[in-house]
Amino acid sequence: MPGWESYLKEHRAEYVDQLMDFVRIPSISALSEHFVDVRRAAQWAADRLKAAGVNNARVIPTGEHALAYGEWLGAPGKPTFLLYGHLDVQPVDPLDLWTTPPFEPVIRDGRMYGRGASDDKSGVLLTIIAVEALLKTAGTLPVNVKFVLEGQEEVGSLGLADFVVANHDLLKCDAIINADGLQWSENQPALLVGLRGVCAADIGVLNASADLHSGLYGGAIANPLHALAELMASFHSPDGRIAVEGFYDDVVELSPEDKKRIDSIPFDESEYKARLGVDTLFGEPGYSTLERVGVRPTCEINGMWGGFQGEGMKTVLPKEAHAKITCRLVPNQEPAKILDLLEAHVKKHKPQGVKVAFHPGANQARPYLVPTDQPINKVTRDVLVEVYGKEPFFAWEGGSVPICDVFLRELGAYSISFGFILPDEQFHAPDEFFRLSSFERGQVAFCKLLERL
Amino acid sequence: MPGWESYLKEHRAEYVDQLMDFVRIPSISALSEHFVDVRRAAQWAADRLKAAGVNNARVIPTGEHALAYGEWLGAPGKPTFLLYGHLDVQPVDPLDLWTTPPFEPVIRDGRMYGRGASDDKSGVLLTIIAVEALLKTAGTLPVNVKFVLEGQEEVGSLGLADFVVANHDLLKCDAIINADGLQWSENQPALLVGLRGVCAADIGVLNASADLHSGLYGGAIANPLHALAELMASFHSPDGRIAVEGFYDDVVELSPEDKKRIDSIPFDESEYKARLGVDTLFGEPGYSTLERVGVRPTCEINGMWGGFQGEGMKTVLPKEAHAKITCRLVPNQEPAKILDLLEAHVKKHKPQGVKVAFHPGANQARPYLVPTDQPINKVTRDVLVEVYGKEPFFAWEGGSVPICDVFLRELGAYSISFGFILPDEQFHAPDEFFRLSSFERGQVAFCKLLERL
Repeated sequence: MPGWESYLKEHRAEYVDQLMDFVRIPSISALSEHFVDVRRAAQWAADRLKAAGVNNARVIPTGEHALAYGEWLGAPGKPTFLLYGHLDVQPVDPLDLWTTPPFEPVIRDGRMYGRGASDDKSGVLLTIIAVEALLKTAGTLPVNVKFVLEGQEEVGSLGLADFVVANHDLLKCDAIINADGLQWSENQPALLVGLRGVCAADIGVLNASADLHSGLYGGAIANPLHALAELMASFHSPDGRIAVEGFYDDVVELSPEDKKRIDSIPFDESEYKARLGVDTLFGEPGYSTLERVGVRPTCEINGMWGGFQGEGMKTVLPKEAHAKITCRLVPNQEPAKILDLLEAHVKKHKPQGVKVAFHPGANQARPYLVPTDQPINKVTRDVLVEVYGKEPFFAWEGGSVPICDVFLRELGAYSISFGFILPDEQFHAPDEFFRLSSFERGQVAFCKLLERL
Repeated sequence: MPGWESYLKEHRAEYVDQLMDFVRIPSISALSEHFVDVRRAAQWAADRLKAAGVNNARVIPTGEHALAYGEWLGAPGKPTFLLYGHLDVQPVDPLDLWTTPPFEPVIRDGRMYGRGASDDKSGVLLTIIAVEALLKTAGTLPVNVKFVLEGQEEVGSLGLADFVVANHDLLKCDAIINADGLQWSENQPALLVGLRGVCAADIGVLNASADLHSGLYGGAIANPLHALAELMASFHSPDGRIAVEGFYDDVVELSPEDKKRIDSIPFDESEYKARLGVDTLFGEPGYSTLERVGVRPTCEINGMWGGFQGEGMKTVLPKEAHAKITCRLVPNQEPAKILDLLEAHVKKHKPQGVKVAFHPGANQARPYLVPTDQPINKVTRDVLVEVYGKEPFFAWEGGSVPICDVFLRELGAYSISFGFILPDEQFHAPDEFFRLSSFERGQVAFCKLLERL
């Protein structure tokens, strides 16, 4: 048993406590009243890096948020790896669907419940723990490492992107190890080969200068809610295809080889439906579910609202209605071009009698692919085989990690995904949790990865 | 000058203070936390009736709400009129659009701002003031009166309807004078000839058992927001006609005579658009604006919501989405039949991949017409001509006063509308107000009406 392994065992309970402390910080990067908490989370991480023996650990402001940076460069001539994770979290509403408060983590049945327990505070802490275990037992690392633990991944990593552009030297590395990643299941590893990109927009439908009585004025002017329904319905055909003109133009169809890779992954439709609690799957015709979530683009409404949402009846004809959308993009869709197409669609399909406003969101990421022949992919695969006793699936993940594309363009380095989140852990939803078994496995796997790099 | 006229002048300031006191009671009948306030408003009205010299004034429970009843039957052999108004009010959200708090009435530029100042606490108080002024000065009334000031008009008058069915003797009368009514403008009276009926329903679109990450699951299952948009869009054709099968089947087309009456009312489109703050009018093709709001049915979404409504971006695929709708009905549409048609529409147009729930609302009213040859219409017309110096327009009001139809069927008595609300007074919306000039004019007009009946 290597020294780090006993070290991890000795500190096991302590590390769980540390993750709980970290989760207690409500570092919601989307809400301005929590910006101060994102900063607190960055300070927490910088302090933790220092305690782990990492050098130059500090908080660096990035726009309205901040990141925690640290480095250990004591292996001259050896490659340098940038360890990446994010310490900000998603908003928590609807709050009433949480079994226990999101920022008061509790452990039930071997799972830690709390916002960020899974996505991605566990990942951040895993990278620090692994470096600490090696440094405290061997006194050294086999490679050089730099930490970039950012505070605005959930709002699109804009500040970090600017920081990367301005700090090529500081961040120079051979590859990025991204701790914000998933495995396939508790006993099946996955090797990330692709992430979808993302772009976002808000749509507003406006009419009268005030809310009106729907009895007195209903029928005389356009109702923004009707118009919004009509407009949002126009984004898809009823069979599930996206109906925005030109949306699919740049989409690269799967190569036969990649199609074979996806099709070879066993998919249990009954289990999948039961897990999500749905009666039926539904999506773009002509593609399997794994293709739909991995290699096909989407255009999703994330929120829609207007008028009266309370108890009982209120006969109001509201003055406005709103929707928030995000598109998931695949190679070779460009976020800026897709936003242009969405805006053109909104203009073309503007319902009669209302004004429509289109606001492109700041959050953008290009789709991202890791070539499977990268040497670091081989190392990652070997570690996963050793830890799980199984060959990993090639995984196209439907989510987006915007900074991967920035790292590639700016630093010339690929990011590999090395995270232990599992797909059922309710991240971005109420009752997010992380498995303590994954937390232990991740500590071991990160140490092994650092040894083999 | 009749005695009551000087009496009104003497008490003018006092009556304004009383209306402010009345408006201060947040009697929102739709919200259970305000049920107690509806009861307080009924007690306030009963006490006020007592002070006016009305007999047997008391609060009578009607289901979860209550009404204030009172009577003066000292004119044997003379006809009996039931004075009707409502002391409950609409919800106040969106609260941030109010210039001053809705239940802290203030007077600005001759207008009293506050929820219920216009609809219908002014009307309730006008009936009491007029009876008081006559009783205190002449010691008697020329006719018998009964007061029914109800507490649940804004939620459909269900409890009152039950009460009317069970209390024919108590409420026996020759006609109802409904103080919940509008005039055309500050210098133009209106004689109500029709009210639209109403029926309501809530629609829910459901899918997964929890909110999901739109990156990981987007594309694999139906998004309830897409489905709701598609479903709600299917209720109308883009040109503004209602697309629910059978919806127009029972609608009686306007008689040439009635069409002439409506068309003879001057309508200033620019003024109307400016008042509502809209660029363009929009509605059912083939009808004028006054026809659209008066004699044509509507199907309006009053509220629609689901997913994330906050600041920034949240990539959620929500588990559910909701809409609230009300239809305004015209002769001879039956609310129950229309609800069946709506439910059939929802079933037929159910989008793929989701479950849809349809909940008919308890609020129903049949459309209501007053035959123009009723004797009481003649008296009302004469008073209006005297007060305004002008012939009233025949008005089909787009709103609904559900109890009018119940009074007709149960008591065999027509309701005439005699109210001094004006259409721009933001009832059911933020910054509701009532003109103090209308308050004074209403006091005089009600006294004259009682004298002439």
